[in-house]
Amino acid sequence: MTYLQILSQNKCYGGVQTVYSHASAACGVDMTFAVYLPPQAKQTKVPLLWYLSGLTCTHDNAMTKGGFQKHAADHGIALVFPDTSPRGEGVADDETYDLGVGAGYYVNATQDPWKQHFQMYDYVVTELRAIMQETMPVNNQHGITGHSMGGHGALTIALRNPELFKSLSAFAPITNPTQSDWGRKQFRAYLGDDESAWADYDASGLVAELGWHDDILVDQGADDQFIDLLRPQSLYEAIAKRRQPAVMRTHEGYDHSYFFVSTFAADHVEWHAKRLKGNCG
Amino acid sequence: MTYLQILSQNKCYGGVQTVYSHASAACGVDMTFAVYLPPQAKQTKVPLLWYLSGLTCTHDNAMTKGGFQKHAADHGIALVFPDTSPRGEGVADDETYDLGVGAGYYVNATQDPWKQHFQMYDYVVTELRAIMQETMPVNNQHGITGHSMGGHGALTIALRNPELFKSLSAFAPITNPTQSDWGRKQFRAYLGDDESAWADYDASGLVAELGWHDDILVDQGADDQFIDLLRPQSLYEAIAKRRQPAVMRTHEGYDHSYFFVSTFAADHVEWHAKRLKGNCG
Repeated sequence: MTYLQILSQNKCYGGVQTVYSHASAACGVDMTFAVYLPPQAKQTKVPLLWYLSGLTCTHDNAMTKGGFQKHAADHGIALVFPDTSPRGEGVADDETYDLGVGAGYYVNATQDPWKQHFQMYDYVVTELRAIMQETMPVNNQHGITGHSMGGHGALTIALRNPELFKSLSAFAPITNPTQSDWGRKQFRAYLGDDESAWADYDASGLVAELGWHDDILVDQGADDQFIDLLRPQSLYEAIAKRRQPAVMRTHEGYDHSYFFVSTFAADHVEWHAKRLKGNCG
Repeated sequence: MTYLQILSQNKCYGGVQTVYSHASAACGVDMTFAVYLPPQAKQTKVPLLWYLSGLTCTHDNAMTKGGFQKHAADHGIALVFPDTSPRGEGVADDETYDLGVGAGYYVNATQDPWKQHFQMYDYVVTELRAIMQETMPVNNQHGITGHSMGGHGALTIALRNPELFKSLSAFAPITNPTQSDWGRKQFRAYLGDDESAWADYDASGLVAELGWHDDILVDQGADDQFIDLLRPQSLYEAIAKRRQPAVMRTHEGYDHSYFFVSTFAADHVEWHAKRLKGNCG
């Protein structure tokens, strides 16, 4: 029996936006996440779109700044916004913004001092997914997306678990962390010096190795201030070599902010809704 | 010549969201505001919708959490988000959240220590409006809306300046501050003990006294946790007595948050766009 504590609850676009806290077995601390249930969920179980956030974010950023709820209500799908790392007393941290709290990278850490709590891959893929299925009016049609570090999370989690996720997209994802300063430092800390252990968490490598059973939508701002760290060219190359069906869009003038994410949020929700509801019309 | 410093600029829904700082003559300190220009503003001057924020807010809250930009881009109107008070070194403040910084109440203070900087009525009506006309690609078709304390600001500013504002709406406004704990404390501090000086800043009183040249849209959540302070019944009574054309909507289940505001943002932008563009279709 999962005990969920409600931290806040607000009606929004006819549905309900709730923030929950729960004791996480995977991470060994209390974790926070947010769920949006569209009005349609009062009548029937609805598909679920996962949104994984980027560095320094919590469950709150996309919930308040992404504008996803309107689109979810329009299409009748639920949203879940997990946190980006364990946090709180006893959780290891680093003084930099891109390691430790707020920077879980959606991996299972194997190294001290991180391995005790930083099990974000298992948290999302196993624990929180089970909680969603058990406690929320959602069916088993799940899609996944995310922004930046969360785009990396969405891509790697979906590519490794095609049976769990039917649809996949990303906003300005970190595509090739094994070759980027947004990745090498963190993987060395969380996963150790043996770089062969890093391959499971590199989206470009996973696309090349595994492919994906459907097309993938990726949006990227041409004026993204972090584009050299995101390395979209690596994902392009993997997609080209694999002949992976994909829609890769580069948008003139857009940067890395939620002003970019919110601009294209409607397209992503529609993308997932069509695939999750089995309706291509 | 107005000097505007750009603090941030992000492409959003094909337009541009910018945050400016400038030396304010009215408030005697640097003030911050945000402007959204829709893509249509590249070709032609567009109408302008003012959004005044509530207690504790800055220019940032509605800009990041309201979702107004999509609707402004859809309709081709610009948005301006002023700050809610002067702030910074030398600006008087109070330890409570609802007086001083973040709580300007859109009045011209006449009392010490507030009168030196707290001139938000003149700041919005005269100074910032002139800046918008001089420096931005906007025409003279202006509408005004706001939330909570900002709804009070929108109503009182528009009712007193019908020649400057063509359209008017509000989200959960403070409607009757002269009879509310969200008003009496602040008006006593800013305007003094003589309550006759308060009447210029009471929306319900102004509706009864002056009316408005068009219909007014007001949205209110039925589960608003601050409804006893907002006193919507006072505005209803004034509207009924005056036979003021209005659309007053009370929405089951909605509270006072930006989840409420964002849910109805599209309706308000459309309301203003129709009136500002002279198009009732």
